[in-house]
Amino acid sequence: MKIACLGPCGTYSEEIARHLHPGQENEFLLYPNISEAIQAVHAGEADAGVVPIENSLEGSVTITLDMLAHGVDLSITSEIAVPIRHNLVVKGEDREMIHTIISHPQALAQCRLYIAKHYSKVACRPVDSTAAAMEMVVAGEPGIAAIGSDRAKQIYGLELVERDIQDNINNHTRFVSLARQPRRVEGTERKTSIICQIHSDYPGGLCNILEEFARWNVNLTRIESRPARTGLGKYVFFLDMEGDILDEKVSVAVNAVRIKSLWFKNLGSYRVLRYGITE
Amino acid sequence: MKIACLGPCGTYSEEIARHLHPGQENEFLLYPNISEAIQAVHAGEADAGVVPIENSLEGSVTITLDMLAHGVDLSITSEIAVPIRHNLVVKGEDREMIHTIISHPQALAQCRLYIAKHYSKVACRPVDSTAAAMEMVVAGEPGIAAIGSDRAKQIYGLELVERDIQDNINNHTRFVSLARQPRRVEGTERKTSIICQIHSDYPGGLCNILEEFARWNVNLTRIESRPARTGLGKYVFFLDMEGDILDEKVSVAVNAVRIKSLWFKNLGSYRVLRYGITE
Repeated sequence: MKIACLGPCGTYSEEIARHLHPGQENEFLLYPNISEAIQAVHAGEADAGVVPIENSLEGSVTITLDMLAHGVDLSITSEIAVPIRHNLVVKGEDREMIHTIISHPQALAQCRLYIAKHYSKVACRPVDSTAAAMEMVVAGEPGIAAIGSDRAKQIYGLELVERDIQDNINNHTRFVSLARQPRRVEGTERKTSIICQIHSDYPGGLCNILEEFARWNVNLTRIESRPARTGLGKYVFFLDMEGDILDEKVSVAVNAVRIKSLWFKNLGSYRVLRYGITE
Repeated sequence: MKIACLGPCGTYSEEIARHLHPGQENEFLLYPNISEAIQAVHAGEADAGVVPIENSLEGSVTITLDMLAHGVDLSITSEIAVPIRHNLVVKGEDREMIHTIISHPQALAQCRLYIAKHYSKVACRPVDSTAAAMEMVVAGEPGIAAIGSDRAKQIYGLELVERDIQDNINNHTRFVSLARQPRRVEGTERKTSIICQIHSDYPGGLCNILEEFARWNVNLTRIESRPARTGLGKYVFFLDMEGDILDEKVSVAVNAVRIKSLWFKNLGSYRVLRYGITE
């Protein structure tokens, strides 16, 4: 199977893609940004894609949400929440003369407090991925440090300046596996995700949708709004809920929401994995 | 009065700050990022701050929301929605040899389709502001283009490559004026904004909050979730509604929500301005 994810070699996405798709026969296609990785699944270049969708400190990975809503027709087949531990790394002897820190914007934001405390005078520059940052440190002038994973540090042969520099020990990223067709992978814990646009021009529009979940006793685990891209004040809502569409209460609630929506998309029902636990 | 906003000279924020605070006696303090501009109001260096909070294509300006929730204690005193029209600009003769496009990440994202169509082989690099991008084009090597406002193009003496390159004519940004104390500025159209964290571990938690607005016939104009930063699955909700806290129905609904919330913050009631219309 061909699996698309953010590259180059050594990103968190690649590490999780290998964890979710462990077979020897799998080939991992590495793309320079998340948007191209998702597009590759949609276009059939890859059979599956593994992308981040949400972080516990920085919130939604908006490019993933926007692509799922407006750009492609894909289903979620698995999700996994992974603890993310960032390291500050440099080349050889550069430890004392850091003038620039580079990384993916999400990683820089997740280490905002550490950087403000220890490197307030240093320039921060966002790049396409944590592993691209390490690659650039290897190739670049002295004094540039990168933020990324332990595995990437080893791949690029860089030196550790400090371990565990994320702002909070509760730094987790939720990754999803995407495919063109809903593919049933069994698992004891399951979720269902939908996107809908509602009639927003009267009081209680969203409440009118949410009360269906309360009525059928379906637990929403997340609600997130994103621009419908048709004007200020127009939104689509991403709703994640516990349970499978094959559960009667989920099916009834989702159908009620579908009928009440201006626009609706079902992202599918999928297994929920815990990092470090193999079912 | 001293007014803080994102700099350098020529950002959209500075243009809107001057529009919202037109007096000759006003001094505009320009900060290298939005976070420092907001912090300056909190710390008393500035009397007010003007910052972007939401864009119709790209969604929330998350640093503004996160600072208002977790970083500072400020009130919103005005809001204004402004049409944003982006230009691609270069230095002198560089038009035919563009190899890199730089701008604020929001501006790059708002022109995503234009860039993909006309400059798919060109590197895109996020910088701190649209005006900082223009400043860097002036100082930099040949072949770098910037995305920003017409006013900034004039300030930095750059050449137009193309006008109106945003993905959609409905590209609007909502800016807010912030102050340490709620300051009543009259206006016919008014809104109120609150932030709350709810009991999320049972079905209907959010619905339980939203039904108060439906019950009291208060129209919510926006609902946005952001991480509570205490773990995956814990959120705070930003709720914007029509009306002033001095209106009885708004006051009753907001008080009911306050009682039902785990944590609550009132960002105040404020006037809503339309760009180009002076009250």
